[in-house]
Amino acid sequence: MKVDLLIRGGTVIDPKRGLNAAGDIAVKAGKIVELNYDMMATREINAEGCLILPGLIDFHAHVYAPGTESGVWADSAMLPQGVTTVVDAGSSGVNNYPNFVGGIVAFNQMRVLSLVNVSPTGLITAHYDENVNPKYYDANALKSLFARYPGQLVGLKVRQSRDIVGELGIEPLKATVKLAEEIGCRVVVHVTDPPCQLTEIADVLRPGDVFCHVFHGTGHTIIGDHGEVLPGIKAARERGVIFDAANGRGHFSFAVARAAIADHFLPDVISSDLTTLTLYIDYSFGLPYLLSKYLNLGVGLMETVAACTSTPARWLGMQGQIGTLSPGAMADIAILKPIQRPTHFRDTPGEIFIGEQLLVPQMTVLGGQIVYRQVDFAT
Amino acid sequence: MKVDLLIRGGTVIDPKRGLNAAGDIAVKAGKIVELNYDMMATREINAEGCLILPGLIDFHAHVYAPGTESGVWADSAMLPQGVTTVVDAGSSGVNNYPNFVGGIVAFNQMRVLSLVNVSPTGLITAHYDENVNPKYYDANALKSLFARYPGQLVGLKVRQSRDIVGELGIEPLKATVKLAEEIGCRVVVHVTDPPCQLTEIADVLRPGDVFCHVFHGTGHTIIGDHGEVLPGIKAARERGVIFDAANGRGHFSFAVARAAIADHFLPDVISSDLTTLTLYIDYSFGLPYLLSKYLNLGVGLMETVAACTSTPARWLGMQGQIGTLSPGAMADIAILKPIQRPTHFRDTPGEIFIGEQLLVPQMTVLGGQIVYRQVDFAT
Amino acid sequence: MKVDLLIRGGTVIDPKRGLNAAGDIAVKAGKIVELNYDMMATREINAEGCLILPGLIDFHAHVYAPGTESGVWADSAMLPQGVTTVVDAGSSGVNNYPNFVGGIVAFNQMRVLSLVNVSPTGLITAHYDENVNPKYYDANALKSLFARYPGQLVGLKVRQSRDIVGELGIEPLKATVKLAEEIGCRVVVHVTDPPCQLTEIADVLRPGDVFCHVFHGTGHTIIGDHGEVLPGIKAARERGVIFDAANGRGHFSFAVARAAIADHFLPDVISSDLTTLTLYIDYSFGLPYLLSKYLNLGVGLMETVAACTSTPARWLGMQGQIGTLSPGAMADIAILKPIQRPTHFRDTPGEIFIGEQLLVPQMTVLGGQIVYRQVDFAT
Amino acid sequence: MKVDLLIRGGTVIDPKRGLNAAGDIAVKAGKIVELNYDMMATREINAEGCLILPGLIDFHAHVYAPGTESGVWADSAMLPQGVTTVVDAGSSGVNNYPNFVGGIVAFNQMRVLSLVNVSPTGLITAHYDENVNPKYYDANALKSLFARYPGQLVGLKVRQSRDIVGELGIEPLKATVKLAEEIGCRVVVHVTDPPCQLTEIADVLRPGDVFCHVFHGTGHTIIGDHGEVLPGIKAARERGVIFDAANGRGHFSFAVARAAIADHFLPDVISSDLTTLTLYIDYSFGLPYLLSKYLNLGVGLMETVAACTSTPARWLGMQGQIGTLSPGAMADIAILKPIQRPTHFRDTPGEIFIGEQLLVPQMTVLGGQIVYRQVDFAT
Repeated sequence: MKVDLLIRGGTVIDPKRGLNAAGDIAVKAGKIVELNYDMMATREINAEGCLILPGLIDFHAHVYAPGTESGVWADSAMLPQGVTTVVDAGSSGVNNYPNFVGGIVAFNQMRVLSLVNVSPTGLITAHYDENVNPKYYDANALKSLFARYPGQLVGLKVRQSRDIVGELGIEPLKATVKLAEEIGCRVVVHVTDPPCQLTEIADVLRPGDVFCHVFHGTGHTIIGDHGEVLPGIKAARERGVIFDAANGRGHFSFAVARAAIADHFLPDVISSDLTTLTLYIDYSFGLPYLLSKYLNLGVGLMETVAACTSTPARWLGMQGQIGTLSPGAMADIAILKPIQRPTHFRDTPGEIFIGEQLLVPQMTVLGGQIVYRQVDFAT
Repeated sequence: MKVDLLIRGGTVIDPKRGLNAAGDIAVKAGKIVELNYDMMATREINAEGCLILPGLIDFHAHVYAPGTESGVWADSAMLPQGVTTVVDAGSSGVNNYPNFVGGIVAFNQMRVLSLVNVSPTGLITAHYDENVNPKYYDANALKSLFARYPGQLVGLKVRQSRDIVGELGIEPLKATVKLAEEIGCRVVVHVTDPPCQLTEIADVLRPGDVFCHVFHGTGHTIIGDHGEVLPGIKAARERGVIFDAANGRGHFSFAVARAAIADHFLPDVISSDLTTLTLYIDYSFGLPYLLSKYLNLGVGLMETVAACTSTPARWLGMQGQIGTLSPGAMADIAILKPIQRPTHFRDTPGEIFIGEQLLVPQMTVLGGQIVYRQVDFAT
Repeated sequence: MKVDLLIRGGTVIDPKRGLNAAGDIAVKAGKIVELNYDMMATREINAEGCLILPGLIDFHAHVYAPGTESGVWADSAMLPQGVTTVVDAGSSGVNNYPNFVGGIVAFNQMRVLSLVNVSPTGLITAHYDENVNPKYYDANALKSLFARYPGQLVGLKVRQSRDIVGELGIEPLKATVKLAEEIGCRVVVHVTDPPCQLTEIADVLRPGDVFCHVFHGTGHTIIGDHGEVLPGIKAARERGVIFDAANGRGHFSFAVARAAIADHFLPDVISSDLTTLTLYIDYSFGLPYLLSKYLNLGVGLMETVAACTSTPARWLGMQGQIGTLSPGAMADIAILKPIQRPTHFRDTPGEIFIGEQLLVPQMTVLGGQIVYRQVDFAT
Repeated sequence: MKVDLLIRGGTVIDPKRGLNAAGDIAVKAGKIVELNYDMMATREINAEGCLILPGLIDFHAHVYAPGTESGVWADSAMLPQGVTTVVDAGSSGVNNYPNFVGGIVAFNQMRVLSLVNVSPTGLITAHYDENVNPKYYDANALKSLFARYPGQLVGLKVRQSRDIVGELGIEPLKATVKLAEEIGCRVVVHVTDPPCQLTEIADVLRPGDVFCHVFHGTGHTIIGDHGEVLPGIKAARERGVIFDAANGRGHFSFAVARAAIADHFLPDVISSDLTTLTLYIDYSFGLPYLLSKYLNLGVGLMETVAACTSTPARWLGMQGQIGTLSPGAMADIAILKPIQRPTHFRDTPGEIFIGEQLLVPQMTVLGGQIVYRQVDFAT
């Protein structure tokens, strides 16, 4: 068999299959195919010294651009980072969601899925917070939206910080979960500087719902007085609640992350929460930079990669199609080179941590097409 | 000469040329052309019993759809009404304006120009009012916007009602005018139920700025205690401030309109302020229905037509190109049939007025193409 | 129960339920709902003297605008005609189909479904014909397309006229059917002035495939020497091939239509084949005008309405959702007024036929929203 | 003064000002600003060892995606290469140009300008060539297009290869120049494997018209029997015809390029002619790779950079705004690192040339925003 693309000489990491080994990857007609001994290829890539990963899934980012003040432009912000699928984390609400689909989903090359914000306008401006008052949730309109965009619209988003909810306390989240029950969908909740204990928030969540920014350090955190993850948080995980680390600087504390990791509480998902405020900017930058941070903090390579490939793919009901390099999957591939180099990481309180490992993107393949490649990554 | 289209037998109304007379209109290559005695035409239209007007200019409407809760879809809401140019009245703000241009201006057939709202998000939702606090006005971003979209972006919009401005009183308007000075553009202000005397608002406006919903009847109006238009309002007109009647029901009082008309204070502009709350709905409906209301109130045909053709064209700096049927102008044409038929008009307080005249759209031509026509308007 | 919209006093025609009777229609939250005796409504419409039909389905038209020379702009061309769903008949090919979806499907309010042309470019220009050589059919790319756009992409289109196929004869159609077998989809074939007997073409079609322009009169037609529909054509219908009358002037002969009707061979589907060459232009105009032609030729009202509602809905697998006014269906509604008025119809050879009946659109409802209404159709 | 961005420590190359020297670049509110001694910056970039160039202008590439088979997606193909402005080289024709503007210009972040193809469909498919028969040129429609898109639409494109023109010989080009005279615009002609001597083609061109793929080696080339550039080609340059090297592999011969360079005939413009057939693929790749080829062939750094900055900016009438780092210009910046590394370059006949210099993109700034950055290019 002659294939379109053959990537040779790298180390294949595919958490879905528990794979971390030297290996080649072959692509034909946009799909991953089985390897043969006498394989010929139109194009061969030498990936010596590199990791070959499934195209990364950025489970939480903001890509409504043009359309919002701080959304990033999906293709140019994501493809050079090895990211081939992104979930927009509620940048639009029920009143502008069809516009998001029309302009953004269709006019980007990468796979763009989305949550819809319970606030009717979404997150247009960075000048002030969205209105999360449940009296403005529009259940009928949201139901029509989920019916109209199956596969595209994957859940509800609500932000539950003190300065956003004000007097409303935990009501916006409770109303969101109720709405989700009615619609038959999941909820993703943003929890930095919450108006109550985080366990109270976790208690409201159902299996499959997502608790994001889990390592934030402002106000109530997931760590108890004795440095251990709160029992209520662990119980939520037992019940099937998903914990997303989300971004690198704005909603992150080394102290919290280290305590959690020491307590064996690793993030289920690692995503970027990218906006124009963090994209390509030191200390946040993009997903491979953030993955490097977790490696430097001692999280295993397999766990780290699973957190942006197989785990979000399963949540999306797309296991086997994306987030894996199994034959038959979409040919979405990220090639990253691990280098040793002192790299600065910073958290929200300002702590600087210097790690030695850094993952540097070399090439990205989307549906079998090379959509990014460094000029010096050539045969 | 053989022309593409020849409209015969109607009465041509062209305020720019002071024309109200039986006449024909010829179209070639998308433009109006001079008539000849021996003219041949690929297509002839019999407009007997009809008025032939320049394609109408709806100077104030909301057409950000998809993208906002109450925006109407420009082409289908406007073309069947004889409207070929619309100015979106600030449905988007600085944070989503490029999205408005990308999706709405390009994917509608008609000419869509626009004001940008000083509120950064524009008017996404009908569930609550926009934030007009001047501390969120972004002068640099707005300047870049005006530089990037010359011809397309024609001014700033601010809404100055009591429930929108709250404690801020007249400050949003003042800050808007200051911003406009900096940018070098005009201001359109919405004034229903204002937080102060309307003369105070008019005093802030500069020549060319637009005062809209002039016949509204909630709270302070333009009419003084003795039933006459306030001197400050008349003075503003003297200085060159433009008065737009805007819509038919939501911001309109027969009492105010009749008093103003009796005092010879006619609207400079008549526009629809259409949203999904009024489109095709009794008592508002669309521009020809609203024009009919003014005819029934005694405003002359020439004045009424000028208010949605030559006057807004001049404001837009497009006189000679649109809003006229002069040879050389774009071939934008509205054919309306005036019929006698008892028609109900209603204002915001609920007064019902029954008029006898109604203008019924028959055909619309845009750049020489027939883009709307009633099935029974045929030879 | 309080509903959003109540349409009273008309005659309801709903072929799916065999209904032709005085009746009211109630709408709530975008759907048709059951009537109650004590029903209240936010808005009531008096439809006395009118027919109330399911929103029409135009099964064959060209709506890639902007993007092609002769495509019409869907919303403004269709909604004022009572059409709420359109199937684009292969205006785009595999190389520009994603662009068609991005720009046209998203930025029109009405439901736009589509066929993809086997010619890779579709029908961009009216200056010359598309290339239908099977050597350019791209099976892999087409398969990916059908996988990517389920529900949106409903079949393959091929044009099989002599001047298009040239030396290729019937090969383009045969290759298209083979491709359709591989993909698992249906075929729509355009057959005016075919390079062979029409029965030869019909023989190639499978149950569910569509033979369009069935009443064309150029070269080989469906009528045999003795004025009867050819046995091979009748046999194809027996096997489940669908016959679409398509448009009014360009591909139509009164002689053929009369002979077929006399032989009880009515069209399964009546569609418009609208392009900028026929839209709003005498003798073609739009779907209600064309429906009127069939009524005047003696086709029954129920059969005529079924041909643009229940029959195409069933073909699309959307029966119960569109093309009917049953409770639970989408609230897509066309209100037409049947008037008596001498109306000229013309066929391709130039025969003029004067009918007495004309259906005049009064109002169109899409998903519960009024999206078109004549100014004089008011309470 | 506090600026938004300060790039320190690199070597600034700005051909417009004849600048090649160590220097810093400061950015505020999207523009380049003058440096001050006590400048503070929100963000500082260390560009040690790098070249700081004006954002590159790719004067000839194909970016109609989605919409054509071989167009690349502008943002993701260009921004990581340091390119901030691209001119689409006639991917669309008069029948789909408005669609190109609607979808592509608006939904990419970078500046996209365009030529329109004289062939009405543009270059939708790679399966067969476009029809360049002058009888299909639509002068009226093209004139309307140029009037409607000033600033956006910058000229006419025609391809003049033997297999495209067939029997028509040089007629398509002659008709294109005639059309350009009528419209008042420039012509860009593609000349690989021409049907006649290249001097015959050059003779038809006017000052400002562009002759592209100047170093192609198929059939007639610019080199005469004695290894010198043909007098007619030199004469054309004297008259002001512009010569664009265009791409790296498909239309390039080392033999021709070396002979021309030896004869001091350098390209006026160096562009990529990128399509999906060459993007990120060895031997073509992207603009910095192609610039490296010319450096390795002995073209000076200043000449090479001018060919993708100041020269195309002047042609576009945008000198001072783009293609320069002068204060007041748009803050479009490309940071490239020159490295020594054996790099393979190949031409169309298959000659391999190994150069030692390679320019590797590190960071791209567009209107003051960082829109691309390598993960290991950090402080």
